Amino acid sequence: MVTDTLTYARNHRGDFLGELIELLRIPSISTLPEHKADVQAAAGWLADKLAAVGLENIKILPTPGHPVVYADWLHAGSDAPTVIIYGHYDVQPPDPLDEWLTPPFEPTIKGDKIYGRGTADDKGQFFAHVAAVESYLKTAGRLPVNVKFMLEGEEELGSTHLEEFVQEHLELLRADVALISDTGILDPDTPALITSVRGLVYMEVTLRGSSRDLHSGIYGGAVENPLNAMTQLLGSLRDAAGRVTIPGFYDKVRELTPAEREAINNGRFTEANVLAETGAPALFGEAGYTLAERVGARPTLDIHGIRGGFVGQGQKTVIPAAITAKVSMRLVADQDAAEIVELFTRHVTAICPKTMTITVETLSAKPGAMVDMSAPAIEAAAQAYEQVFGRRPLFVREGGSIPVVGMFTHLLHAPVVMMGFGLPDDGLHSPNEKFHLPNFYRGIETSIRYFELLAGPAGN
Amino acid sequence: MVTDTLTYARNHRGDFLGELIELLRIPSISTLPEHKADVQAAAGWLADKLAAVGLENIKILPTPGHPVVYADWLHAGSDAPTVIIYGHYDVQPPDPLDEWLTPPFEPTIKGDKIYGRGTADDKGQFFAHVAAVESYLKTAGRLPVNVKFMLEGEEELGSTHLEEFVQEHLELLRADVALISDTGILDPDTPALITSVRGLVYMEVTLRGSSRDLHSGIYGGAVENPLNAMTQLLGSLRDAAGRVTIPGFYDKVRELTPAEREAINNGRFTEANVLAETGAPALFGEAGYTLAERVGARPTLDIHGIRGGFVGQGQKTVIPAAITAKVSMRLVADQDAAEIVELFTRHVTAICPKTMTITVETLSAKPGAMVDMSAPAIEAAAQAYEQVFGRRPLFVREGGSIPVVGMFTHLLHAPVVMMGFGLPDDGLHSPNEKFHLPNFYRGIETSIRYFELLAGPAGN
Repeated sequence: MVTDTLTYARNHRGDFLGELIELLRIPSISTLPEHKADVQAAAGWLADKLAAVGLENIKILPTPGHPVVYADWLHAGSDAPTVIIYGHYDVQPPDPLDEWLTPPFEPTIKGDKIYGRGTADDKGQFFAHVAAVESYLKTAGRLPVNVKFMLEGEEELGSTHLEEFVQEHLELLRADVALISDTGILDPDTPALITSVRGLVYMEVTLRGSSRDLHSGIYGGAVENPLNAMTQLLGSLRDAAGRVTIPGFYDKVRELTPAEREAINNGRFTEANVLAETGAPALFGEAGYTLAERVGARPTLDIHGIRGGFVGQGQKTVIPAAITAKVSMRLVADQDAAEIVELFTRHVTAICPKTMTITVETLSAKPGAMVDMSAPAIEAAAQAYEQVFGRRPLFVREGGSIPVVGMFTHLLHAPVVMMGFGLPDDGLHSPNEKFHLPNFYRGIETSIRYFELLAGPAGN
Repeated sequence: MVTDTLTYARNHRGDFLGELIELLRIPSISTLPEHKADVQAAAGWLADKLAAVGLENIKILPTPGHPVVYADWLHAGSDAPTVIIYGHYDVQPPDPLDEWLTPPFEPTIKGDKIYGRGTADDKGQFFAHVAAVESYLKTAGRLPVNVKFMLEGEEELGSTHLEEFVQEHLELLRADVALISDTGILDPDTPALITSVRGLVYMEVTLRGSSRDLHSGIYGGAVENPLNAMTQLLGSLRDAAGRVTIPGFYDKVRELTPAEREAINNGRFTEANVLAETGAPALFGEAGYTLAERVGARPTLDIHGIRGGFVGQGQKTVIPAAITAKVSMRLVADQDAAEIVELFTRHVTAICPKTMTITVETLSAKPGAMVDMSAPAIEAAAQAYEQVFGRRPLFVREGGSIPVVGMFTHLLHAPVVMMGFGLPDDGLHSPNEKFHLPNFYRGIETSIRYFELLAGPAGN
């Protein structure tokens, strides 16, 4: 049965690619208000496509921002597992436009790559699952599992309204497995499953010294300069060994077991590669941990910008009235985001000198998540990859934050399978974003195999 | 003889004010290229006025930037002292425009104040000397001293080309006394002579970590963030007691003598006043020194801005490739500006972590200066003030930097008399700048008295 489905998928590669190109032509840039109609158009296009494939219960569900496209096919039987497939149809802005070699919204095929905004992030990736579902329904007339699609339009905005949306639609979205294809593999022949994502707490700290900007010739030596105070405050948040100094910050961070350490240190990161990729003169991180551990399994603290004062050409001897710093912390799954917000706020307030008034604002607090690697859904994904790529996937900890992973983990209590088809050089968020076409076709076949494997022997 | 001159000055107050208003109408904003013609126009207006007054040898001398207006009258005899009078005819930009209650370049008189950009800084102040010279030449037909005017058009740019100019025109500018009216007095009835100005070293420090901006989800924990490194570096430049930690920074700073301390702590600064003026929750400065000592007689270090990273609305988890900080140090007269540049550069380079490459650039290095208070020219100034204001002046250390003071001190070897007529609330560099008209008229009379006193008994 699956043979016919795979044959259909192979025979219709040109059609799938043509449809993907239609979707890629829609500049669904969620962050730019002038593209709101394009975001709507992409949602409408997807709803039509999902209906044409044979999915049912098609909905374009509103949120306070851009809508979520929903569709399902639930006729595999009550014993068959239900998979919710997540993707996002919004894309990053294409700036800087003049660095694109081909127009970002005129998808262009060169060799075995397709260039255009959204090719890898994320239209090309989730569309592989749409093609897989079509291949089943147009051959067998059925799927071995129940499927639900949840396609978001605000991922590039930080999934602003998604948590509220998931909480409001818990029954509709309930599933046994969540499948996300919005990550990468190591090279065209080495697949990877993500075993954890880091959370993100993003804060703004404002120090105010005076009611107006002052002149350092008149007041230098009389009142404190908020920039001097801010550098001392922020500079103290990490010690010389790279550890965050906020009391309690590491309290919930479990030490890695030898098995976890072995799994993490799988050769994905090498010091030479990171030095070459970044051009940094030396690496840096918390003492006592390898590079891969520091990025994937340890929390970090970064300052992203300090606003205020004078940053133009030349010299101005201003003592600024107030200064605002943007600071984020990547959290591991063991840490509680709300608790970290509280610890951070309490600490910076405690160390704020009496020459300043301090204001602390939370811009976001999203938890990290760990995947239960013993779940049968994960083993099935590993086998599906192996059947198509000829190799078992590496298990990789992701240093970044994918908010929906925490929502599926904590709200749906479903194991999250992060089965990516992107490559490290796809240029997500950069000019000349591309997607490797063999990965698109392998993605479709991996999806077909995965549904079969997930259903188990009974599903075959 | 001086009686006629004073009578002339009193009878022509309306004419002097009318002429000052003409000059104030010219928006000679030196920092804005679109006002270059206005700066030229102000220079031309002054050259015409100085000629009309009866001054000679009128020149508009070019510099690589805006010109210097020169004029002299040298017929007082070879025994009479020569006074060089400095002023600047350029003004600050008027921003923020919407905070002005009357248009900045339509001078407006309300009660005994004139409002407009440049009224106190510095057109109204130096014009008092022009009026004094006119009063002498139109009555006695002569002055008791030789005078030279040197009126600059780049003070608000940091007197960029003035040092070069003074060195190129040493013979032309040579004088026995330099007279500058670009400072303030304590209140309308309490005159002040400035006894020292601080120097200014202004540096830019750039830390570069990687060759391009990085994403903290991918590289947070792998490479150092230049903003984290910068806050640690800058935060360490001052200790908890407010002392600058750069080795050698204080080596040349002489401790104050008990007499100097007494002179400085003259009640000009009170903690309550500074708290009220600034709205700061608490004062701050180097332990072991009073407020007045910290501002006037001790060096300080201020950070003015940190450029780079993300400072917009919302959140972006960027690890910026590079960050640039603007840092200045106010120096006391004992310190050598070039040496401080060298000590600063050597120290920040030494403490720069190996994860960063550092670049240090000098934007300016101007020495401070002390006035020899025992010079007869200073006592004459004190007496002139007393004759007009009815009170001897306070001797005050100025925390700011007036570059020309160092040039006159070190290049012309002339005692510098800083005889100001501004008030603390004149709003220099701020909206609604004003000048107190009684101070303008007293300024003219103080100048007339000063020339007479400077000539000594022989000049009367």
